[in-house]
Amino acid sequence: MNNENFIISLTVAGWSSQIKACNKILSELSDQQLMQDIVPGKNRGVYILGHLAAVHDRMIPLLGFGDQLYQALNPIFLQTPDKAVETIPSITELRTILETVNAKLNNHFATMTTAQWLEKHTAVSDEDFKKEPNRNKLSVLISRTNHLANHIGQLLLLK
Amino acid sequence: MNNENFIISLTVAGWSSQIKACNKILSELSDQQLMQDIVPGKNRGVYILGHLAAVHDRMIPLLGFGDQLYQALNPIFLQTPDKAVETIPSITELRTILETVNAKLNNHFATMTTAQWLEKHTAVSDEDFKKEPNRNKLSVLISRTNHLANHIGQLLLLK
Repeated sequence: MNNENFIISLTVAGWSSQIKACNKILSELSDQQLMQDIVPGKNRGVYILGHLAAVHDRMIPLLGFGDQLYQALNPIFLQTPDKAVETIPSITELRTILETVNAKLNNHFATMTTAQWLEKHTAVSDEDFKKEPNRNKLSVLISRTNHLANHIGQLLLLK
Repeated sequence: MNNENFIISLTVAGWSSQIKACNKILSELSDQQLMQDIVPGKNRGVYILGHLAAVHDRMIPLLGFGDQLYQALNPIFLQTPDKAVETIPSITELRTILETVNAKLNNHFATMTTAQWLEKHTAVSDEDFKKEPNRNKLSVLISRTNHLANHIGQLLLLK
């Protein structure tokens, strides 16, 4: 493994460690706990679960892996705050969706080359990417890892 | 800039974005807000502030940049839970310590070469490092970035 591949593998390991931490806290929280506000008047655990599922699902098209799998999540968990939509998917369903989406991402991550990680993500134009080559797939992975860590910190408070 | 340096710069940018987010939320929270439990019975904001200061301060020796600057933080913010120690530094003091420590880290990060990032951190032996070359300084940066993001998510709940 050359240095480039090795350095990227450390970044992917950072993502994997957060996915593992996320799976752990979600396995420790009951559906009942996830229905509670983390802090009174703030997001419920279930909203964070659905939000993570939606954000990770949207990484699929953003990274050029194919179409988003569960577009129905967007209006509930991305475009509106918690409790704005009355009927939401069940926690069981959301747990499965998050697992499915993460598995799809991880399958792609396992085989990506350095050149592919440094390709532009799909939300930036060719023109802008020439000026800002940091808007690549690896940057998406880094920012989504931090996003995930951010919400894991909140889920931990439900324990 | 070669690919190795470029890839590392993306990782450092991930750290910098979290430092910026941390500074932002801390500037938005009053000392009074930081004295509150984030969730009743869990850590106060001030504990997280002191904990981040201590963890980042300990990155200085861990990354081989010199001695830890504020060892007195360790028993309060690393070795015991919140409220175990009655007299703690003031919030003003902790804010300054965190800024000082982050500035020192960032000064070093700005000039590090790829070879330096891939050196072993100081808590691993030469022997173990031969077997696990991923226990390097870049991995410390990645894990501490995620740690910071984790606690930022919690501080955001005090707003």
